[in-house]
Amino acid sequence: MSAVEPTTNDTARLETFADGVMAIAITLLILEVHVPNVQGRALGSALARQWPSYAGFLVSFLTIGIIWVNHHHMFKLIARTTHAFLMLNVLFLMTICILPFPTALVADYLKNPDGRVAATAVYGAVMTAIAVMFNVVWRYAGTNHRLLVPGISDEALAKMNRNYLAGPVVYGLATVIAFVDPWVSLAIFAALAVYWLLPGTGPRAEAAGRESLGP
Amino acid sequence: MSAVEPTTNDTARLETFADGVMAIAITLLILEVHVPNVQGRALGSALARQWPSYAGFLVSFLTIGIIWVNHHHMFKLIARTTHAFLMLNVLFLMTICILPFPTALVADYLKNPDGRVAATAVYGAVMTAIAVMFNVVWRYAGTNHRLLVPGISDEALAKMNRNYLAGPVVYGLATVIAFVDPWVSLAIFAALAVYWLLPGTGPRAEAAGRESLGP
Amino acid sequence: MSAVEPTTNDTARLETFADGVMAIAITLLILEVHVPNVQGRALGSALARQWPSYAGFLVSFLTIGIIWVNHHHMFKLIARTTHAFLMLNVLFLMTICILPFPTALVADYLKNPDGRVAATAVYGAVMTAIAVMFNVVWRYAGTNHRLLVPGISDEALAKMNRNYLAGPVVYGLATVIAFVDPWVSLAIFAALAVYWLLPGTGPRAEAAGRESLGP
Amino acid sequence: MSAVEPTTNDTARLETFADGVMAIAITLLILEVHVPNVQGRALGSALARQWPSYAGFLVSFLTIGIIWVNHHHMFKLIARTTHAFLMLNVLFLMTICILPFPTALVADYLKNPDGRVAATAVYGAVMTAIAVMFNVVWRYAGTNHRLLVPGISDEALAKMNRNYLAGPVVYGLATVIAFVDPWVSLAIFAALAVYWLLPGTGPRAEAAGRESLGP
Repeated sequence: MSAVEPTTNDTARLETFADGVMAIAITLLILEVHVPNVQGRALGSALARQWPSYAGFLVSFLTIGIIWVNHHHMFKLIARTTHAFLMLNVLFLMTICILPFPTALVADYLKNPDGRVAATAVYGAVMTAIAVMFNVVWRYAGTNHRLLVPGISDEALAKMNRNYLAGPVVYGLATVIAFVDPWVSLAIFAALAVYWLLPGTGPRAEAAGRESLGP
Repeated sequence: MSAVEPTTNDTARLETFADGVMAIAITLLILEVHVPNVQGRALGSALARQWPSYAGFLVSFLTIGIIWVNHHHMFKLIARTTHAFLMLNVLFLMTICILPFPTALVADYLKNPDGRVAATAVYGAVMTAIAVMFNVVWRYAGTNHRLLVPGISDEALAKMNRNYLAGPVVYGLATVIAFVDPWVSLAIFAALAVYWLLPGTGPRAEAAGRESLGP
Repeated sequence: MSAVEPTTNDTARLETFADGVMAIAITLLILEVHVPNVQGRALGSALARQWPSYAGFLVSFLTIGIIWVNHHHMFKLIARTTHAFLMLNVLFLMTICILPFPTALVADYLKNPDGRVAATAVYGAVMTAIAVMFNVVWRYAGTNHRLLVPGISDEALAKMNRNYLAGPVVYGLATVIAFVDPWVSLAIFAALAVYWLLPGTGPRAEAAGRESLGP
Repeated sequence: MSAVEPTTNDTARLETFADGVMAIAITLLILEVHVPNVQGRALGSALARQWPSYAGFLVSFLTIGIIWVNHHHMFKLIARTTHAFLMLNVLFLMTICILPFPTALVADYLKNPDGRVAATAVYGAVMTAIAVMFNVVWRYAGTNHRLLVPGISDEALAKMNRNYLAGPVVYGLATVIAFVDPWVSLAIFAALAVYWLLPGTGPRAEAAGRESLGP
C-alpha cells in the first residue's frame, strides 16, 4: 500500500457499476431507431430506407459488446482499486454513455452529402475517445503492476499494452479518413466490430494464459 | 482446456450483464405506450382505442420474461465461458434489445390494413432471431459438453436440444403466416407467451433434474 | 422436493433481476417530467404550473421505493424458487414496469376536469395490480411454507399475510374513490407513500424477528 | 439490536440497487442531448451551438460519478441496515434520479438571459438536495456508530462528518449565487466536479485508513 494512494482489494462493486452502465448504454441504442410515420402501403419501403439507423445500431451495439468482453478480460487481471482508478473508470464509462448520441447523428445525416462528414467525424471522435480511455484505464492499472494480480510477466504485460494500443490507432485513423471519405471511415468501424467479434482476435489469449496459472 | 479456445470458470459476470440487458429491454417497453393527446372527455375511449399498444407491451414483456427464466435455467447447466461464447451471448442479447422497436411498429400499424403485414413480419423476424440465437448459444455450450457442468447425460442433452428447437420452429412458422394473415400470426405469438408462462412447460424439468444430482 | 414442481435453492439471480427492473422503472419516471417550452421570462411560472408532474413523480417514486424495500424484506424469508414462482415474479415486475405510463397520464390530465377521473382510475388500477401481484408472489411462497426458510411460525406467517393484504385493499378502495372524487383518491395514494416511508410501519418487524433466529 | 429498530447484517442488496439506480441515471443523461435538425451544411455549426447540452451532460455525469465513488467509499464503513436506513437511501436515490431534468432545463435555457436564472436555480437546488441527502444517509449510519463496522475512531468519524458537510455548503452557496449571476454559479458546479475528480480530494483517505485495519 503506497503512502500517497491507498489501494483497496475490491473490484466487485466497480465491475457491477461498469456492467450496469454498459448494459444500459447498449440497450438505449434501440431508442434511436424510430418507427416510420407513413401510409400503411409504404411501410415496407420506409423501413428499408432507414437502413442507416439499423447499421448504426448494429455497429455501435457490437462495439459496446466487444468493449464489455474486453473489460471483462481486463478485470480478471486487476486485483485492487484506488480512488484515481475509480475516477478513470468513470471517465471511461462516460465515453461509452455518449455513444448513442453520435450513433443517432450518423443515422440521421448519413444520406445527406453535406452533413455526412461532420456526423461521421463526431462518431469517430467518440469511438476514439472510448479506445483511448480503455487504454488509460489499463495503463494506470498495469504500470509497475500497480493494481494487477500476481503472476503476470513483464513480457505478457508489454504484449497486452501493444494489443490494446491497436484500438485508438485504428479508430483515430478511421476518424481522420472521415474528412476524406465518410463511407470508407464507417466501413472501417463496421469491419473492426465484425473482426473483433471473430474467435482468435483481441487480447483474451493473454488473459486466459494468466488464468491457467490459477486464480 | 483446449489449445485453440481457452475456457474460464466464470459465468457470474456474463449472467449479471445478461440480466442487466434483459431487465432494461423489458422495462423500456413501456416507453412505447404513449399518453393520448385528446380532449379530457374523450380520454377513456382514446385509452381504449390504443389497445394494440397494450397488447404489444404484454406479449413482448412476457416473451422477454420467459426468455430470462429460460436463460436462468440454461446457465445452471453452464460452468465455463470462452471468448466465442461471450460474443455469441452479445449477439443473443442484441436480438432481445431490438424487440422494443418492432413492438412499437406493430402497435402503430396494427389497425392499418396496408401496414399490418409488414409490421407483423418484422416483429416475427425479430422473435425468430431471438429464438435462433438462444439455440446457437445453447448448442455452442452443449456440443460435446463443451462448457457444461459434469453429470448431464447425453439423453438429457438431446432432449433439451429438441425442447429448445421448438422456439425457432414455431416462431418461424408464425412469421411466415404473417404474410397470409397477420392476426393469426400475432395470435400465435400471444398464445406462445401465455403457454410458456404456464407450469409444466419448457425445459425447466431437465434443468431441475440435473440439479437434483447436486451442484 | 415435490414431484410436480421441482425447486432450486437459488434466489440470488431472481433478486438481481428484480432489483434491476425496479431500479430502471424507478429511474425512468423522470423522463415523463418535461422541460417547458416557453419564453425565458415565463420559465419560473411554467415550472410551477407543471406541479402535477412533480407530484406524480414523487408518489410513484416513493411507491416503487417502498415496494423495493418490502420485496427486499420478503426475500429474506424465501429460500427456494420454482418455475411457477419465477413466472409470478415476472408478472409482478410487469405491473411495476407499467407505472411510468399512468404516472404520465395523471400528470397530463390532472388539471383537466373531464380527463381527471379516467386518468386517476387507470393510475389506481395499476397501483392495485402491483399490490395484488405482491400478495400473489408472497402467498405462493408462503402457503404451506412452500419456499420459505425454516423457523417461521404459523402465527408469524398469518400476521404477514394480514399485513400484506392491507395493500390491495386500500389501493383498491382508493381506485374506486377515483370515480367519486379523483383528488381524494390521489391524496390517499400520496398519503400511503408517505405513511409507509415512516419508521414503525409495514411488515419489516416480522422479517427482522425471523432474522434474529439466525440465517 | 435495538428494540425499536431492528438491524440486519446485509448491505449487499442495497448497494446493488443503489448502483443500478445511479448507473441508469448517469446513462439517461445522454438522452437529453438531441440531434440537431438542420440542413446538412449547417450541421457542424449547429453541433457547436448546442454546447450547453454537452456542458450540462459533462458536469452532471461527473457529479453522479463522483457521488457513486463516494457512496462506494461510505458503504465500506457500513455493516448493517435498518428499515429507516433503506428508506433514507430511497430518498437519496430520488434526488439523483431527478438530475436529468434540471440538466436538460439548463441546457435549453442557458442562452436565454430571461430563463437562465430560474434554470440554474433549479439545477442548484437539486444538486444541493443530493448533497444534503448524502449527509443525511451518512449521519444516520454514523451517529453513535449505529450501523458502522467496528474499529472507526470518534476522531475519524468527526473528520468524515466535516468532509461530507462541505458538499451541501458549497452547493447551497452556488445555488444562492445563481440569483446574482448564473454563469458564476454554473462555473462553481463545473469546478467542483473537476476538483473532486482529482486525486487527493474527498473522504477516501479516511475510508482507506479504516481498511488498513482489516475488514
